[in-house]
Amino acid sequence: MLPYKSAIPIAEALRRGEGKATVRGWVYRKRTLKEKVFLLLRDATGVIQLVVPRAKFPEAESLNLESSLVATGVLVREPRAPGGVELHVESIDWVYVGEPYPINEDAAVSDSEYLLDVRHLWLRSRKMQAILKIRHTVFGAIHDYFRRRGFYEVHPPMFITAAVEGGATLFKVEYFDRTVYLTQSSQFYLEALIYSLEKVYTVAPSFRAEPSRTRRHLTEFWHAEMEIAWAHMDDAAKVGEEVIGHVVERVLDERQDELKLLGRKVEALERAKPPFHWLSYDEAIEVLRKKGFALSWGDDIGADEERALTLEFDKPIILHGFPEKLKAFYHRNNPQRPEVTLSFDVLLPEGYGEVIGGGERIYDAKELVEKIIRFGLNPEDYQWYIDLRRYGSVPHAGFGLGVDRLVMWIAGADHIRDVVPFPRDIRRTRP
Amino acid sequence: MLPYKSAIPIAEALRRGEGKATVRGWVYRKRTLKEKVFLLLRDATGVIQLVVPRAKFPEAESLNLESSLVATGVLVREPRAPGGVELHVESIDWVYVGEPYPINEDAAVSDSEYLLDVRHLWLRSRKMQAILKIRHTVFGAIHDYFRRRGFYEVHPPMFITAAVEGGATLFKVEYFDRTVYLTQSSQFYLEALIYSLEKVYTVAPSFRAEPSRTRRHLTEFWHAEMEIAWAHMDDAAKVGEEVIGHVVERVLDERQDELKLLGRKVEALERAKPPFHWLSYDEAIEVLRKKGFALSWGDDIGADEERALTLEFDKPIILHGFPEKLKAFYHRNNPQRPEVTLSFDVLLPEGYGEVIGGGERIYDAKELVEKIIRFGLNPEDYQWYIDLRRYGSVPHAGFGLGVDRLVMWIAGADHIRDVVPFPRDIRRTRP
Ligand SMILES: [Mg+2]
Ligand SMILES: [Mg+2]
Repeated sequence: MLPYKSAIPIAEALRRGEGKATVRGWVYRKRTLKEKVFLLLRDATGVIQLVVPRAKFPEAESLNLESSLVATGVLVREPRAPGGVELHVESIDWVYVGEPYPINEDAAVSDSEYLLDVRHLWLRSRKMQAILKIRHTVFGAIHDYFRRRGFYEVHPPMFITAAVEGGATLFKVEYFDRTVYLTQSSQFYLEALIYSLEKVYTVAPSFRAEPSRTRRHLTEFWHAEMEIAWAHMDDAAKVGEEVIGHVVERVLDERQDELKLLGRKVEALERAKPPFHWLSYDEAIEVLRKKGFALSWGDDIGADEERALTLEFDKPIILHGFPEKLKAFYHRNNPQRPEVTLSFDVLLPEGYGEVIGGGERIYDAKELVEKIIRFGLNPEDYQWYIDLRRYGSVPHAGFGLGVDRLVMWIAGADHIRDVVPFPRDIRRTRP
Repeated sequence: MLPYKSAIPIAEALRRGEGKATVRGWVYRKRTLKEKVFLLLRDATGVIQLVVPRAKFPEAESLNLESSLVATGVLVREPRAPGGVELHVESIDWVYVGEPYPINEDAAVSDSEYLLDVRHLWLRSRKMQAILKIRHTVFGAIHDYFRRRGFYEVHPPMFITAAVEGGATLFKVEYFDRTVYLTQSSQFYLEALIYSLEKVYTVAPSFRAEPSRTRRHLTEFWHAEMEIAWAHMDDAAKVGEEVIGHVVERVLDERQDELKLLGRKVEALERAKPPFHWLSYDEAIEVLRKKGFALSWGDDIGADEERALTLEFDKPIILHGFPEKLKAFYHRNNPQRPEVTLSFDVLLPEGYGEVIGGGERIYDAKELVEKIIRFGLNPEDYQWYIDLRRYGSVPHAGFGLGVDRLVMWIAGADHIRDVVPFPRDIRRTRP
């Protein structure tokens, strides 16, 4: 048998703490002390100290960091070793000697351009490993939440011909003899699918040609979107509370080690249980004016205002009832108060801000066409979307959740780039 | 309370079979008999017959198909009704009267261009509903398979600058002041991620500018890809057997009604348990020559040959050991027999053919650069991919699975378009 096939995960070796074991992995740290070489070996599960006799394995001393190897020996409890256990190596059966590794992890500044240039290697760092594990848990929890509540997972197209969010940030694709666009949101397609499946969700990439480099924008991001038939704004907002609450709970359950490694304080996460803090747009304007923002009713609530609001409350905020002109045409106006829409955003605490945008959609065909015209758009461009209202339309509501932003907040990252394995923005498209 | 909030799913009403109930949904069929209007009402869960007194609800008779409504009444067992239960309607609380519905479902030919033009409505058909439910189950089972076996879900980029599968089928995107491409496969990125997480998978769109309209090609498709550190061709092929076996078992468990509605015979599905039929390329050439194909060793095994092979065996086939020149440069050559690669395809039975392509990757830096040059490519174009081998490389293997193709086979569909909600090919980019 190939030597590395009998290896056990390093976390398992640390748990056992005695007996013979084979481990495999990458050299994470190295130090020589008299007759012994101490190698810290990492794998996907942890880090263990290998104690290697120099005389028997002279090559150990000259191994570069990130070299890979398979070692067999005896596990011994040693309080001074990381994880409290070390492996006294008896044989090394497989080695791939690496060139001198170009990254000094201890000195690295995580959002530097250099680390983005060598992102394919920086993924090996313990920090990225921890973030990627949290990310894995977040995505799994989103799927579980929707599936357990009777939503069907669907797969809307990436190539589209009509804009949901407005034309300015559309990417153009050369599509044989014509031009198409990349999807910004699957919402219109989810709306078509509720007439068949009633409750649908998708977790898929969306694309926005964002010309600015901010800490919370990328040109491609993962979007969890859902839509429910026979539902209203409050129904959708409650799903938003619940899915975030469920995700956070799962991460707190499964990823304590990773949160600790990242230095993430978990108090704000522990408080993120439904119900969130419901705040109307009107109330938000009041709160912000008291805090010194020169705002009038009707003004947009931008990134700075969002930040100020989230610092005012210790839970995520459901900010609802935006004025008509601040939200896209498809939002249903409140029949009791037509100047505002049945729309909401969810804002994450600690300054993180918007993670969900959603609301109730116009379901009446005539009302939709009138609003399209009122917004200066052409109903011809939305023919099939209007069509959905011509045959047995129903009240419905939904939202889109920026999953990378959710991971960013949960991990306590400073920049959205830090939580995406290969981030893309206006300047960066490689590796 | 809004009337439709008290509705129960139609499947639940059919199970109860007695007592008072409110249901909601869309008019699927309509017929008038003397003083009664019989409406078949559909929702996401089933179809129930509503018995509506004409005198009390004169509007019922003129309702167009696909109108939506909410009805309350008494459930009565009636063997002649679909599902064996009907609702004797006492009140209709909510109606959205549709225009005359443009599709006659009974007359519809499923792959007609017209049904593709009105795909946003055709999704309401019972056939599409059944297929979308199977699709939902397939995707869920793929995630479950990988997660339960310790794989981490990762999210490689959609915007790329180097081709995995060759430049001919790359889509170009106008990316601010330059051009980038859409991903054809996440393999290279998964290879980077195994050095951190060891076992990784992704389920994401891939894009290929396929100029031909065939029954198994689309320009965007969902790709389940995985990569494992410290692994070889056989390890990857076994994961392929297992994931397909697991998915099929789940569908047989959860989706019998949908398979029946589609008229899918399930014998071939029931036989799709690991181990599959392992067949070397050399053996395949022999089998095909005996069947009259004029093939020499080294020739490609195209769609016709695949079809013939799959009709020869009653299980999926692991076809392995392709000649070097038939597979991309990154496949590792067999050290015992350098003219063949440690590569494999999985072919689905009943003529469906290739659903997985995978194998062992070259992990030695020098060997990789030599093969890139031997293939007439430029190592400069693969700098970061080669880089992965410069620091502690390990043997590894993986594959890509075309999820839409898997759904197509499981559903017994004639065309891949039939199992995708909004299919895209050279001619079609809307709705
Ligand atoms: Mg906003
Ligand atoms: Mg092939």
